[in-house]
Amino acid sequence: MRILVVNVNTTDSITQAIARQAQSVAAPGTEIVGLTPYFGAESVEGNFESYLAAIAVMDRVLAYDQPYDAVIQAGYGEHGREGLQELLNVPVVDITDAAASTAMFLGHAYSVVTTLDRTVPLIEDRLKLSGLYERCASVRASGLAVLELEEDPLRAVEAIVRQAERAVTEDKAEVICLGCGGMAGLDEQIRQRTGVPVVDGVTAAVTVAESLVRLGLSTSKVRTYATPRPKRVVGWPLHLGR
Amino acid sequence: MRILVVNVNTTDSITQAIARQAQSVAAPGTEIVGLTPYFGAESVEGNFESYLAAIAVMDRVLAYDQPYDAVIQAGYGEHGREGLQELLNVPVVDITDAAASTAMFLGHAYSVVTTLDRTVPLIEDRLKLSGLYERCASVRASGLAVLELEEDPLRAVEAIVRQAERAVTEDKAEVICLGCGGMAGLDEQIRQRTGVPVVDGVTAAVTVAESLVRLGLSTSKVRTYATPRPKRVVGWPLHLGR
Amino acid sequence: MRILVVNVNTTDSITQAIARQAQSVAAPGTEIVGLTPYFGAESVEGNFESYLAAIAVMDRVLAYDQPYDAVIQAGYGEHGREGLQELLNVPVVDITDAAASTAMFLGHAYSVVTTLDRTVPLIEDRLKLSGLYERCASVRASGLAVLELEEDPLRAVEAIVRQAERAVTEDKAEVICLGCGGMAGLDEQIRQRTGVPVVDGVTAAVTVAESLVRLGLSTSKVRTYATPRPKRVVGWPLHLGR
Amino acid sequence: MRILVVNVNTTDSITQAIARQAQSVAAPGTEIVGLTPYFGAESVEGNFESYLAAIAVMDRVLAYDQPYDAVIQAGYGEHGREGLQELLNVPVVDITDAAASTAMFLGHAYSVVTTLDRTVPLIEDRLKLSGLYERCASVRASGLAVLELEEDPLRAVEAIVRQAERAVTEDKAEVICLGCGGMAGLDEQIRQRTGVPVVDGVTAAVTVAESLVRLGLSTSKVRTYATPRPKRVVGWPLHLGR
Amino acid sequence: MRILVVNVNTTDSITQAIARQAQSVAAPGTEIVGLTPYFGAESVEGNFESYLAAIAVMDRVLAYDQPYDAVIQAGYGEHGREGLQELLNVPVVDITDAAASTAMFLGHAYSVVTTLDRTVPLIEDRLKLSGLYERCASVRASGLAVLELEEDPLRAVEAIVRQAERAVTEDKAEVICLGCGGMAGLDEQIRQRTGVPVVDGVTAAVTVAESLVRLGLSTSKVRTYATPRPKRVVGWPLHLGR
Amino acid sequence: MRILVVNVNTTDSITQAIARQAQSVAAPGTEIVGLTPYFGAESVEGNFESYLAAIAVMDRVLAYDQPYDAVIQAGYGEHGREGLQELLNVPVVDITDAAASTAMFLGHAYSVVTTLDRTVPLIEDRLKLSGLYERCASVRASGLAVLELEEDPLRAVEAIVRQAERAVTEDKAEVICLGCGGMAGLDEQIRQRTGVPVVDGVTAAVTVAESLVRLGLSTSKVRTYATPRPKRVVGWPLHLGR
Repeated sequence: MRILVVNVNTTDSITQAIARQAQSVAAPGTEIVGLTPYFGAESVEGNFESYLAAIAVMDRVLAYDQPYDAVIQAGYGEHGREGLQELLNVPVVDITDAAASTAMFLGHAYSVVTTLDRTVPLIEDRLKLSGLYERCASVRASGLAVLELEEDPLRAVEAIVRQAERAVTEDKAEVICLGCGGMAGLDEQIRQRTGVPVVDGVTAAVTVAESLVRLGLSTSKVRTYATPRPKRVVGWPLHLGR
Repeated sequence: MRILVVNVNTTDSITQAIARQAQSVAAPGTEIVGLTPYFGAESVEGNFESYLAAIAVMDRVLAYDQPYDAVIQAGYGEHGREGLQELLNVPVVDITDAAASTAMFLGHAYSVVTTLDRTVPLIEDRLKLSGLYERCASVRASGLAVLELEEDPLRAVEAIVRQAERAVTEDKAEVICLGCGGMAGLDEQIRQRTGVPVVDGVTAAVTVAESLVRLGLSTSKVRTYATPRPKRVVGWPLHLGR
Repeated sequence: MRILVVNVNTTDSITQAIARQAQSVAAPGTEIVGLTPYFGAESVEGNFESYLAAIAVMDRVLAYDQPYDAVIQAGYGEHGREGLQELLNVPVVDITDAAASTAMFLGHAYSVVTTLDRTVPLIEDRLKLSGLYERCASVRASGLAVLELEEDPLRAVEAIVRQAERAVTEDKAEVICLGCGGMAGLDEQIRQRTGVPVVDGVTAAVTVAESLVRLGLSTSKVRTYATPRPKRVVGWPLHLGR
Repeated sequence: MRILVVNVNTTDSITQAIARQAQSVAAPGTEIVGLTPYFGAESVEGNFESYLAAIAVMDRVLAYDQPYDAVIQAGYGEHGREGLQELLNVPVVDITDAAASTAMFLGHAYSVVTTLDRTVPLIEDRLKLSGLYERCASVRASGLAVLELEEDPLRAVEAIVRQAERAVTEDKAEVICLGCGGMAGLDEQIRQRTGVPVVDGVTAAVTVAESLVRLGLSTSKVRTYATPRPKRVVGWPLHLGR
Repeated sequence: MRILVVNVNTTDSITQAIARQAQSVAAPGTEIVGLTPYFGAESVEGNFESYLAAIAVMDRVLAYDQPYDAVIQAGYGEHGREGLQELLNVPVVDITDAAASTAMFLGHAYSVVTTLDRTVPLIEDRLKLSGLYERCASVRASGLAVLELEEDPLRAVEAIVRQAERAVTEDKAEVICLGCGGMAGLDEQIRQRTGVPVVDGVTAAVTVAESLVRLGLSTSKVRTYATPRPKRVVGWPLHLGR
Repeated sequence: MRILVVNVNTTDSITQAIARQAQSVAAPGTEIVGLTPYFGAESVEGNFESYLAAIAVMDRVLAYDQPYDAVIQAGYGEHGREGLQELLNVPVVDITDAAASTAMFLGHAYSVVTTLDRTVPLIEDRLKLSGLYERCASVRASGLAVLELEEDPLRAVEAIVRQAERAVTEDKAEVICLGCGGMAGLDEQIRQRTGVPVVDGVTAAVTVAESLVRLGLSTSKVRTYATPRPKRVVGWPLHLGR
């Protein structure tokens, strides 16, 4: 089974870290392919960048010319998943949904700890649209930008633990979701520090994608995610015009 | 005052119809400028096309090099408004929100009549995110595609009236919103046929945009719609690379 | 165009202040007429006074014997708007709704800062009924009574700013609505102090009312706001019996 | 114990029917006093009439000069209960709330069958504000006006049964609430015809009022229903000026 | 009238205290019978113990061989009420629901003060399922275990008052519900200390049960609480096999 | 890895069918152990039977004396999962949650098709408590009892397909969940007949359980699902006393 794990930003080192993290939990026989979009922001921290990432991720997946069994969109709280679901016939898993869905098996309520405060409303809105917000105790910002996570993992762990502890104590969260693809690999440290289960969206998404493939299930095509109607689309895919 | 009215699809005749409709209610001294995106689908009827439109609209607005006071995104239930709000300092009005917001002053509940069934969930989701869904009695599909509206306005009126009447009788709507930029200009006929107020999003958006400008109000920049942080963004704006 | 702006309390100086504020944003050719009810409380700060105001406002409007194009009910979070909508054929705009509706175009969430704590639940309930509560971050009380606002505007600004700042910081509001007709005219100072858009319900309502008139739209009469059935009503209108 | 049962309309025969119905379930030693407002509509079927009733009921209770232990507002889905709660220190029970609250002990979901369709949104809104709407399967209109119930009880039973049966079959209601004070006394016939528990708001309210008195409980005065602040109120109570 | 009041734990002294409290408000002619389950935990503070109690309560009621008119389940926020409603034809009243329902007649919002923090989510969930959560301001834990309440009533009062005061001040509760059957009898002291109405679920439930019996109302049998279908049930009732 | 799959009824043939279905999708190296409770109903179709099953499942798992890695509760919409989560340290997966959670990755909305109408409210309530109800379009009853499914699989398929088609057409479901453990194995036929993805809770739960184990995640013990406090529990586990 081959699973495409698509980063939402254009920073290759993050793509590689995500792919490594994904491969670490993949079942024997599952090949993880990490993809970086051809255009977009070096980190995605807001609506404009997220919308650009949405279309860049679709563009990048369409440019991939080998067969694959599932696609993981590895950005937390980003736009675009629904578009991929229309364009593809294989399952599409967003790490936001995979993390929340996994967390809900582990506790009565979960919180998300993410990067900057400005991304909090995006994450809340995406969880609402996915129907996974009801048991969300809070979305909290660590205050660190995406690229700062990579530069200083120790500081990142501290900042995330601080918010995770408040989520448990004040917001009554029982599980923590790491709210950024760039936090991949920090889960174990944070679990040890907080004493609650910590869900990393990337690894959660790998198991969800594998499960769907194994169950022979893929996106329903009867309504919302039906294949786009044949029509004139100017300048698409965007990588062709570049 | 100059207001940019941006179509979400690449069909120029629709842009022109929308701009005419907008100008018809504009206050003396308001200039309406209709813009067509440089890339995207000839009609937007689903998530992929809508995400592409989102970024194409932002791209098109950034390419406009004259001063302006407000921007109207003239697609019903489409993605992207939040991105424009980040990028711009002038007010941004989506016709989906303008229509719903206006309808709520006129009756206890409103319904939207749109084009194809596949677009219904998008519209519902966008209204939920905007916080304007609580008084929405239903979103109904006429079954006509966007481009069919233009080709056969008589048939369009019939199909919309049929659903509007069911919305009033079965769903208890008291006001009807026309759920497609391409329906601009049909409101009067449908009002006469159904006996309830009919809100056209384009004209509603013009009055909202003018009101915000007149009140000296624009998008809050403290959190969700703060200006994007300075960072490396590859290949943007997209029209530059073409 | 003539718009009636009806105060909810019986204090003439507040009526005048509201009317001045309304006229300040009215379009050329719009005449604002301020009306004070014939009976009721000198300030409205609770359910009893608000219910009395509801009926006093309807009574006062019916006593007005000149033509008019729209009515604004200039009390924040008060009862009665639905009754006016039944009795009249012209648009009726409540400043509570106008402020919230305007605020929602400007930010992801808004807060209301009002007078006394006891009025907070009324405002919350009215916003819920209007379907505009979903994006309300909080309703906060300044602790000042309605008449204290007039007596000491400086202190009023301080008290409002204090709560507005907490609304932004703690409740994540991005826009502030001034939650009392008597706060008319304070918006600019509070905007400067807080750095977020501040919406005054009176001026917002003027633009909404003008917009509805310009669009040729008025209250739907098919169900909730249908004209009252002809029947025996003892002692109404109340001003006739006095 | 003396309980005031206040009609919301000015039709004496309805007041008497309600009072008889109330007395029929009252505990030994409970005296029911039926009161008719001094002004208002002969039947209440909409917002204007309901707002007028709200203030007329308060006015009528204040005019009652004997001691009493509780007040029942005997109109279904009407405005005003919160005002009475502010003005009085004894418990206030609205029959809308009493019926819904009682129904919720009897089944998983309840429906209300009321008079005219135009009153449905009022009832829904009042139940929402009271926090009793979550388990409401539907509010259905029999199509009969309030005064028609009295004139032709047989036809009333038929019309109510027809909607009650649809509520059970289509809306999955398990209990029916009679949604009009004027339906008092029809519960037994409708129960026999539909096979589900039928709750009459007036008798339910008597048991609730008696229970609150027996438990030594009354309205909380700490916030929403605090006694109105001392202030100048022009022309109140209204019956004094007549 | 005979009402069974069933404790959820196996501590006889608590059963007796509950029964005394119930009898204290019972109408003349109402006989209260306190029952202790044959199996289960000495105190119920979590899901496992609550599920065990659910079935032990049903088992205990079935073992009671005298006639009775209503059953009260005297545990706060526990599972099982729906099962009793299926098995019995007389009304079943849970003290959680009775307290919340009573509190909603007394104020705009209520809070529950319970024992241990771990029981808070159960109570919230039970209130949600009962449709009585909308006006719940908060559920707060005193930090005392059920059996500690009995051992040290003074300390219990202190701990409950502390949380009740925070509920009023911070959560805007206007009424307090005592969230544990074992708190029966403390209501008067807490009312004096906090100045807000305090509802004890046991006494509230007695008045609700009496009211339902007096109104001739019992559980609807058309759907959710229909009598179990005749079928093979191994080992039930459980007390028979012991 | 060993996963216990616990039936909720006492019919061995259903346990075996469920276990076979579970094994069919289990990863290499996963051993499925089917368990039948020692007491309870031959089929579970209502609250009493479900509560009895809840405690019988816990009792049965505690009686199992070999090591295991996860537990699946194989009843649709039944009580008890939270109790197991308290008692155990390994992950607990309810097939109701697993099916809904899986369905939400496949379409914008899902419906459940279950057995008898009386079980519908239980399923809806369980999904609400799990926070997975938001995207549930409907829960529909096929009208077949649990044991009839086994007796006549052809008729079962027909009855399920009929409701599944209505769920897609009328309720706008895009995915169907089979709402009964006894439907295990029918998914493929129903998928072919309806053209939408069909999720069987048992197989979905196997992949969820395996995923949690693989990710090293288990139930959070900080609050709701903390291990029961040490205390006297009479007559537990129940199988010991038999």
